[in-house]
Amino acid sequence: MIPIFRSNEPQAKRYLTRAPIEPASLPDPVKERLIRAFGQALDAEEAVHRIIEEVKRGGDAALLRLTELLDGCRPAHLRVEPAALEAAWRELDPAARQAMELAAARIRRFHSRQQAHSWLVWEGGGALGQLIQPIESVGVYVPGGRAPLVSTVLMTAIPAQVAGVKRLCLCSPPQRPTGQPHTAILAAAHMLGVQEVYAVGGAQAIAAMAFGTQSLPRVDKIVGPGNLFVILAKKQLYGQVGIDGLPGPTETVVIADDAASPALVAADLAAQAEHDPLAKPLLLTTSESLAQAVNKELEQELGTGSLSAAAAECLQRQAAAILCQDLQEALALANEFAPEHLCLSVRDPWPLLPFVRHAGGVFLGEHMCESLGDYIAGPSHVMPTGGTARFSSPLSVWDFVKICSVFALGPEEARSLGSAAATLAALEGLQAHRRAILLRAGG
Amino acid sequence: MIPIFRSNEPQAKRYLTRAPIEPASLPDPVKERLIRAFGQALDAEEAVHRIIEEVKRGGDAALLRLTELLDGCRPAHLRVEPAALEAAWRELDPAARQAMELAAARIRRFHSRQQAHSWLVWEGGGALGQLIQPIESVGVYVPGGRAPLVSTVLMTAIPAQVAGVKRLCLCSPPQRPTGQPHTAILAAAHMLGVQEVYAVGGAQAIAAMAFGTQSLPRVDKIVGPGNLFVILAKKQLYGQVGIDGLPGPTETVVIADDAASPALVAADLAAQAEHDPLAKPLLLTTSESLAQAVNKELEQELGTGSLSAAAAECLQRQAAAILCQDLQEALALANEFAPEHLCLSVRDPWPLLPFVRHAGGVFLGEHMCESLGDYIAGPSHVMPTGGTARFSSPLSVWDFVKICSVFALGPEEARSLGSAAATLAALEGLQAHRRAILLRAGG
Repeated sequence: MIPIFRSNEPQAKRYLTRAPIEPASLPDPVKERLIRAFGQALDAEEAVHRIIEEVKRGGDAALLRLTELLDGCRPAHLRVEPAALEAAWRELDPAARQAMELAAARIRRFHSRQQAHSWLVWEGGGALGQLIQPIESVGVYVPGGRAPLVSTVLMTAIPAQVAGVKRLCLCSPPQRPTGQPHTAILAAAHMLGVQEVYAVGGAQAIAAMAFGTQSLPRVDKIVGPGNLFVILAKKQLYGQVGIDGLPGPTETVVIADDAASPALVAADLAAQAEHDPLAKPLLLTTSESLAQAVNKELEQELGTGSLSAAAAECLQRQAAAILCQDLQEALALANEFAPEHLCLSVRDPWPLLPFVRHAGGVFLGEHMCESLGDYIAGPSHVMPTGGTARFSSPLSVWDFVKICSVFALGPEEARSLGSAAATLAALEGLQAHRRAILLRAGG
Repeated sequence: MIPIFRSNEPQAKRYLTRAPIEPASLPDPVKERLIRAFGQALDAEEAVHRIIEEVKRGGDAALLRLTELLDGCRPAHLRVEPAALEAAWRELDPAARQAMELAAARIRRFHSRQQAHSWLVWEGGGALGQLIQPIESVGVYVPGGRAPLVSTVLMTAIPAQVAGVKRLCLCSPPQRPTGQPHTAILAAAHMLGVQEVYAVGGAQAIAAMAFGTQSLPRVDKIVGPGNLFVILAKKQLYGQVGIDGLPGPTETVVIADDAASPALVAADLAAQAEHDPLAKPLLLTTSESLAQAVNKELEQELGTGSLSAAAAECLQRQAAAILCQDLQEALALANEFAPEHLCLSVRDPWPLLPFVRHAGGVFLGEHMCESLGDYIAGPSHVMPTGGTARFSSPLSVWDFVKICSVFALGPEEARSLGSAAATLAALEGLQAHRRAILLRAGG
């Protein structure tokens, strides 16, 4: 079912290398919608540029026009009415309400443990330090595509709330026939006390949050996953507005030894695969017989037809098992790949932790299911993909605060530093800096 | 000299509003170089796109070709030889060496006080937490333009070193006739133990650090200021490589009351102005007589011819004094502007600190000269410009670490959460997630 390679085979390397992100060729229905909206064929990047310009100039009217043409749905109101949020929560199945409350409490507790406090050190008759304050307003984007990602509402909004963000709004595309975002998303927003919810999606939602429209005041930062259009809009608006990152297709590397359960490993690879045909489920194992047993499990799953078409497609095109000499080699390959999720389904996972260098999140032990992390463990499930774990982090409280450096040296200390500072200003040829310093130093 | 407005006059608002960043029209010599390099007239964005593609494909050869055509200088070696670094340090004036060492020690001490530690909480027979690790490799860009920004080497490299970054490299454009970066920059690199220094600048340096060439291995993250081409390259490569931000022209808002010294306020505005004709020096004051006295000082400065042409041009075009009802109004206007630097040149600055909402750095008291902050106070002088202080931070240790979330719940705890997690997976329609969870929960 999934191919099995030894780590030194060239095909193993191919699976562990990401194809460069090429300008995607758009599906035909999307192409047609773009022609309807703009009167000509456009590639995704150019379309997003046009959408941004139109929303910036046209405000609400542009949002409505683009939503109708691109999402095929005209929302009755751009902003969802408060009553609709409450109704969505009330109408939700009690078990789902309880599950959401439990998840929210755990996510809130985890994030409240992250340190992000202002500090001052007193020295030289004064102080230096960092004011650490919440970002004032944040927009959360929640995709509306394959699944109503209720968990994404929790995993993005709660860290922002813990950080102390004052104004939180949420955009998600309207669904037919209601013209509102999915009910479960509205319910989650209500539970969290997020009252500002807009029935708008895609690049137009990102542009609206960045520039503001009549109905939707601009925000300081935008977070959350999305489709190609959302990601291109975030990239094009980076710098104009704060951006958490550019999440791409999800990825899981499972490292397993001969103690791992083939059924559990197979279930984890299948779970990863059902997100997206472009998701990447990889198994690195020291046990050839485990790899073969996992394949049997996957074949059986496919046989029963219980896997979605997307999952089956992903497993066929994107998944592989790679046989490693030992766990250290497996970890070295995983570190090089820098996956979003790294699952250590081995007998004794703790001794491996110090060797994990690049991953969005690491899951210790086969009972510690990655899917539990998606919903309820505590840390945000928004994690760096595409190898960006080398330099970026899961969404956390740090994403929702900002630093202001405090310069408050005492007069004596400031004077005593003047001569060295003036020397450096002279070295840089900045005479007015030098003069401003020397005037203080009594020079 | 600089215009004086009341806060309710429309012109005051104009100075407190940033013009949207339009595609800049390039100076003629730059246009000519681009034609020489690419055989046709290109705007900056398209030129940067071409430069990136050429470096990605062509490696060292492309770097050398572009450096010669765009910087007008062919470096003998792309990588500066270790002996040249040491020689630069040895040949530096002893006073400059001492000043650099003092500044480095202070910057290092300040940054070592910032918290960025891994943490685990033990609960439910297991643990959750965050591994916080240094980014492995970082490239620092140091501009070569108007001034040899020695201080920028210190203000970018030291926070990275404090964070524990293993590999640090530095790019700065070659100067004529040596074909190397400015000697003072080489000396600073040597002092800090940064051994990997490259004689390459502009968009081509950013592309080289992002993709790697034969001589210059790729890095995980790029930090530092630069000209339009550098900033556009950082924007275009955001996501491919880590980026600290897109710093634009520098900005200072001085809030002053009737206790402020006109000479010091004028000196600070002039220091701000000498960076760049597009820098923004603004005075918000409760005292009309202070504003007039500041103007007299500036006129005198201009009269003596001691100000550079850039500073004079900036003061004439970009500076203004705005008269405020009281300090609270001044702070409200400053918060709305969200300046890079906010100087509180008032009798009693500490009580104002709790009302500072958006600024890269705040300077308390007129003795606490912003220029001291540029060189020696301790916090990095790389701070958010262009209003991005609303959502971003000065360069700090946080920019050089990354988080990996640790999911290590105990088996019992993981099992007990399964039912709620499975409910959420079902709500999202993700059946394979549900199955992976229920297999653990024994369901």
